[in-house]
Parts: sequence; C-alpha cells; structure tokens
Amino acid sequence: MIIWSSLTDTEKQQALARPTASSSRQTSDTVAQIINRVEKDGDAAVIDFTRQFDCPDLTTLKLDAQTLDTLADSLDSSVARAINRAYNNIHAFHSAQMPTDVTMETSPGVRCELKYTALEHVGIYIPGGSAPLPSTVLMLGVPARVAGCQRITLCTPPNKQGSVTPEIAYAARKCGVTEVFLCGGAQAIAAMALGTQSIRKADKIFGPGNSYVTEAKQQVSLRPDGAAIDMPAGPSEVLVIADADANPAFVASDLLSQAEHGPDSQAILVSNSEALIADVKQAVEEQLESLSRADIARTAMQNARYILTETMDEAAAVSNQYAPEHLIVQTAQSADFLPKLKNAGSVFVGPWSPESAGDYASGTNHVLPTYGYAKNYSSLGLLDFMRRYTIQELSATGIKDLGPTIMSLAQAEGLDAHSNAVAIRLDALKEES
Amino acid sequence: MIIWSSLTDTEKQQALARPTASSSRQTSDTVAQIINRVEKDGDAAVIDFTRQFDCPDLTTLKLDAQTLDTLADSLDSSVARAINRAYNNIHAFHSAQMPTDVTMETSPGVRCELKYTALEHVGIYIPGGSAPLPSTVLMLGVPARVAGCQRITLCTPPNKQGSVTPEIAYAARKCGVTEVFLCGGAQAIAAMALGTQSIRKADKIFGPGNSYVTEAKQQVSLRPDGAAIDMPAGPSEVLVIADADANPAFVASDLLSQAEHGPDSQAILVSNSEALIADVKQAVEEQLESLSRADIARTAMQNARYILTETMDEAAAVSNQYAPEHLIVQTAQSADFLPKLKNAGSVFVGPWSPESAGDYASGTNHVLPTYGYAKNYSSLGLLDFMRRYTIQELSATGIKDLGPTIMSLAQAEGLDAHSNAVAIRLDALKEES
Repeated sequence: MIIWSSLTDTEKQQALARPTASSSRQTSDTVAQIINRVEKDGDAAVIDFTRQFDCPDLTTLKLDAQTLDTLADSLDSSVARAINRAYNNIHAFHSAQMPTDVTMETSPGVRCELKYTALEHVGIYIPGGSAPLPSTVLMLGVPARVAGCQRITLCTPPNKQGSVTPEIAYAARKCGVTEVFLCGGAQAIAAMALGTQSIRKADKIFGPGNSYVTEAKQQVSLRPDGAAIDMPAGPSEVLVIADADANPAFVASDLLSQAEHGPDSQAILVSNSEALIADVKQAVEEQLESLSRADIARTAMQNARYILTETMDEAAAVSNQYAPEHLIVQTAQSADFLPKLKNAGSVFVGPWSPESAGDYASGTNHVLPTYGYAKNYSSLGLLDFMRRYTIQELSATGIKDLGPTIMSLAQAEGLDAHSNAVAIRLDALKEES
Repeated sequence: MIIWSSLTDTEKQQALARPTASSSRQTSDTVAQIINRVEKDGDAAVIDFTRQFDCPDLTTLKLDAQTLDTLADSLDSSVARAINRAYNNIHAFHSAQMPTDVTMETSPGVRCELKYTALEHVGIYIPGGSAPLPSTVLMLGVPARVAGCQRITLCTPPNKQGSVTPEIAYAARKCGVTEVFLCGGAQAIAAMALGTQSIRKADKIFGPGNSYVTEAKQQVSLRPDGAAIDMPAGPSEVLVIADADANPAFVASDLLSQAEHGPDSQAILVSNSEALIADVKQAVEEQLESLSRADIARTAMQNARYILTETMDEAAAVSNQYAPEHLIVQTAQSADFLPKLKNAGSVFVGPWSPESAGDYASGTNHVLPTYGYAKNYSSLGLLDFMRRYTIQELSATGIKDLGPTIMSLAQAEGLDAHSNAVAIRLDALKEES
C-alpha cells in the first residue's frame, strides 16, 4: 500500500508511472521490411506472411460472402442474441452522436458553413490470438455504419483452418462490413493503408493489436500515401476510486477484469479507507482462485497499486494526474464527486457499473485512450469516422463590406496577391455600379 | 495545358502528383538532437538555439506582459480595426461549433453520456520569417479561447531585436494568450511538448512551420511523454474549378494568391473551357508584373497545372481525386454542382469569394489539411481544442437487465473475470431481494 501524502512529487510521479512503451529498433525495422514487401508485391506478400504466421495452407485472402454467411448462421443463438442486444445499445449511443452542420452569416453577405461527411472507406483490424473479439467488431463496425462510410474493410488473422470464428462472422455481417480479409499483423495494416490487388486502400485504419500492429499503424500514418489511424495505443488500464462505502468484492472484480487482459495490464485502487484497501486485497486473492486466466491476472496484479489518500479530493487529484483509460467511481456521493474528475477515457459510476458493462454492451465505445493519452485524446466515437470541412460564399455585398479588412490584413502580412484578389473584385463591382 | 480525357489512369495520377515530402534523414537527426538537448538542459538549451538562429542577444524567453501591452498599443489603428473585424467573424463561426453533450438511456437503467471538455493547456506556434502572421494567431487563439482552454502558450521566433511585431502582440492579447515566449523552430516545439523551467508542458501543439518544425511536431507526437499535434503538414495548395462563365482575372488572382505563399505552392485550374484556360494564363502573366513577391509566385506558377476536361462532372472527379486544401468553384450553377464535390479542406463558392477571404476574415479556419489529407483529416475547428469522454451508470435494474448479455459476450471471448464482475453483482442483488 502506498501512502500518498508521504510521497515527494517525484515519488508520486514514480508511483503512477507506466511501463516503458518504446517499441524496439528491431520491431520497427521488421515492420518497415514487411510494409516494403507488401508495397512491392501486394497480395503475394500478404499471403506469404499469413502462411508463415497464421495459416500454412491459405490460398485466398478474401473470405467469400457465402462462407461468411454460413459461419454467421452457425453461431449459437444465445450468443447471437447477446451480440444483437449489444449492437442495439452501441448503435443507439453512437447514433445520438450524429453532429449537426453549421450554417451562419458571420457578417452581412458572408455565409460560412461547417459540414460533416463520413470517411469513404475505413479499415478495421481485429486481432486474432487465443479468443475471438466480436465486441471489437461492434465497437468499430457500428460507428462506421452509423457515420455512413461507404466501404468497411475488416482484416483479421485466420485460424489454422483458414477461417474465422462464427462470433466474428456474425458481428461483421451484423455491422454491414463490406469485405473480410484473412490476414493480420503488420502485413494487414500495410495492405489496408497502401492497397493491394484484392484489398483496396482505406482512408483510415482502426483497431487494437500487438506491438507489430501498433508500430505498423504508426509507420503508415506518417506516410503521405498511407492512412490516418484512430489513436496511439498502450497497455489497457483501470483506476478505481472507492471509499469506505464501496463493496470490496465488486472493486476486486473490476481490478481483476482489467488484470486478465494481459500481464502488462495496469490496475490501481485509490481510497481514503485503509480498511477498504485491506478488504479488496483479500477479495482479489479469493476471486483469483476461480479464474481461468488466473496466471495472467496474477502477473498483472503483482504490478497493481493500492494508494491510500487522506481525503477523497486527494483521490481525485491522483486520478487526474494518472489520466486512466477506465475510471471506476464507487463512492457514497458520486454526483458531488464526479465534477472533480477529469482526464479519463470512460467513467463507470456507482456499484452497478462494472467495467465489463462498457467493454461489451452499455453502448459506450471500448476503444479508449490509454497510457495517459486521456489528457489530450478523445474516446473513440462517431466523429472519428467522419471529417469536417468548411464552405464560404460571399455575395457582392459581402466582399464590398469585408474586402477592406481582408486587404488590410494581407498587406500587413506582405501578401500582395492576396490583397489583389480582393481589389480586382472591388474594382469590377465599381465598374458595374 | 493537360487534356484530361487523353490521359491513362497512371498519367492522371502523375498529373495530380504532389512534390515528394519525405523529410531527409539529416533533418530528422538534427531535430532529434535539438529535442534531446531541450529535454536535458531546458531553458538554457532553448536560449542557446534562439541566440544561434534568431537573436544573438536574447537573455529571457518570456515576453513580459508590459512589453506585450506596449507593443500591442503601438499597432496602427486601421490594422487593429481589421484584426478586430476578423476576430469577430472567426469568433462567431467557431462559437457556433460548440458541441452538445449527449445523455441517453440505451436500455432501461443504463445511462450513457458523451461529454466534451476543453483541453487544459494548448501550445500555439507562429512562424517568424519575412512577414508576421497575426492571422494565424487568430486562427489558433480564437478557437482555444472559445473552447475554454485554461492556458494558451504562444511561441514565436524573436526578431533580431529580441521582440515581436505589434501585429502579433495585438492579436495575441486580443485572443487572451496566457504567455508569449520568444523562441521558434524545433526547440520551441520541444519546449512546449516536454516543458522547461519557464515553459510549461502543453497537451497539444498547433501551428504551421518549416520542415524542422513539422518534423519536430511529428517526433514529439510519437512520444508518450510528448504532446498531441493538430495535423500533418505539407505545402499549401489551391484547385480552382471554373467554367466559361468565370471571370479570368478573378481566377488568375486566386491562383496567384496561392503561388505567392512559397515556391513549392501548388496551383491547379480545372475547366471545361479551353478559352477560359487561355484567358486565365494571360491574366496570370499580366497580374504577375505588379506583385512584390513576383519571383516566388513565378517559380510556383511554373508548376501550375491547367487541366481541360470534357465536362464539369469530369472536373469534379479531378478535384475529388486531388483532394485540395483550398477548392475554389466559379461556375454558372454552383448550387447543383457543389454536392458533386468531396475531399476538400475549405470550399470557396462563386465570383465574390476569393481564397484570401477565408485566409483572413470570413470566419472559417485557415488551418487546413494539405497534401491530399483532405480525404481523411478535418479542417481545423473548435473540436480540435476539446476532447470527448464517456460516462456510464447502471442502476440495479440496469445490471439485472443487461447483465446476462454482458456475461454471454465475456464468456464468448474467454474473459472470466469480466463475466464474474457481473455475476458477483447479480448475486448481491438476489441476496437483497
């Protein structure tokens, strides 16, 4: 247990430090080589890498529509119902985020517009690995669909049989994914960013992945002929603020939800109650016994931090400094307390709001800024699948009225041609009248 | 003149190609060294670099408030009035972009919120060089102020006398900039991203600059302890779509406005009228005679492209493929034509809307995606100075109702602890009832 008030400022920073996340030179070089190969050889390179890493017998990258349908139809009906229910909530919450265009006259005869439009083609990446992640298909596919993206390309590494799970197939079909390709890793990111014979170049790429995927997203986002990406990535994390009123078993279960994601997951409990901290620690030990992923969770919990503060205001300050991806608040008076909290990706309020609610089905997006990025990046939302542009139209009255202002500023910046573009129009209007 | 229909697809791509923008290894290494020095030595490093590049006698980085006031008060009153007028339009248009929080029940007892909050501390960079750029101070300072950022730090390279122009001082004071620092280049970006003794670390850095500034912004944006940045940068560009009805002198003046920005500026005219293209070419030559920056503009115009299309629909397709930063539309029926255009940063409609209107005073932002980024990045707006986060609160009813869905999905993904966090709560509710 860390007693916050006993720490110096430097010790406080250390207590909240995250593991170093710099990707190694080796990862960066490997990824650059993969991207180069995909750029040069297209599909052939992607198939080669996929055979090497995922499925030795793969022949075609595209999962044909009929196979997708058959797989989707084979999904257990209770899981299908759960996916439908989550889909509805995510759809409702992201539809409510639809922005409104702005049109106004800023001065007489000067009309300005801000317009929103869907990105034409988005690429979504779904990692493979031990478990399928249909929830991530929903979190990326639903807002793409709601935004009105014309094309949604999904890449995911195939299993050894050259296929995907029924869960992934069902969720992809449900979201109206345009095409599913059986490839993963840096080669999938390169294919979506640069395009190959069968995979069309996307405007923006979304989705989580391992260090190769993260590095590849970064590299393609720096190329003018590459693609935009959703946000920088880091290990997942939760910070729970709880007072003496909180239920220790609930708090423990939320810390463990985070911990089971991976051995590098970060779990932090901040409380003004020493008794609560002791009870949570005990509950963590008890609950660990029955988890299937107990090894992973136990490793992650070795880095868990239990921070004792003198007051709840101090607890809020700790959270604001850390800027957690997930912030769980289990306190007696949350309504008064919430306005003190800033810098979190998603906030879970009260005893009945476990992190898993937002991970799957409440309707909020589970793609969130990690690694302290909650200070300066947004949680994923509908707007990430759209772009804004402006329009202006001046009438003759508008340019007559605003023209001298424009000319004065252009001359102050020494830009004659800018001034001349107005002067030539004002002259034409004088001749007309 | 390029006859569009005579080109193959590859030739079309070449006709719209932009100059290569990869920063050299040397630039990248130099910038990395500057960032390292600033990280290690703070203010001392920034002052050293500033003495070396900008002002040999500089002793203090901060421009004190009294000097700023004196400079601002010394501004010519007609320029001050022009800045005020531009400020009002920009303020009005960015205020109209204020987003609305979303609150809804996605299912019974499941409340989800999307909230917007201002970034706490933004850094704005204003380049030095031959002319002061008060307009860029407005384009970055006004939305920061409207968003409600608590701290706005401005860095700009000092002149030889260790000061800034009255225009910059006036615009900075008008926007409520918190502090002005006399430094530029990669050292200014490093200082704002990492913090020094006198310059506090900012959450996000905005503003244009030369290749060192651009490279520095990119490097700090990749560091977890760095800062977010506004958007990738490239040379400025305009594409004009005009038909036989357009005024050739107006079109020429808009192409030249772009061309005078720098020798690498891109200017493209697309028209279905060969006569219009010939007239514009002649008008360009005539107008070039009287420009003070004729040398720069002439160099840029050597790379100008005049593209003849068969139809106006084809002209729209050319523009959509190029994705221009500025798109000027001077056609007989713009209302019918506009919906065909996509992929532009800012659109200028009709004969009385020169690009300089948006550069200075219409109210739209002049920080726009260049280099084809208009396909997947937004024009700068109020939302770039804010971030979004979500909140969810489930009631006992909410978790009872949605819990089985969450558990089903967690189990499908093999995440026991996620499921357990719900089960433990449902058990507690059963015991209560």
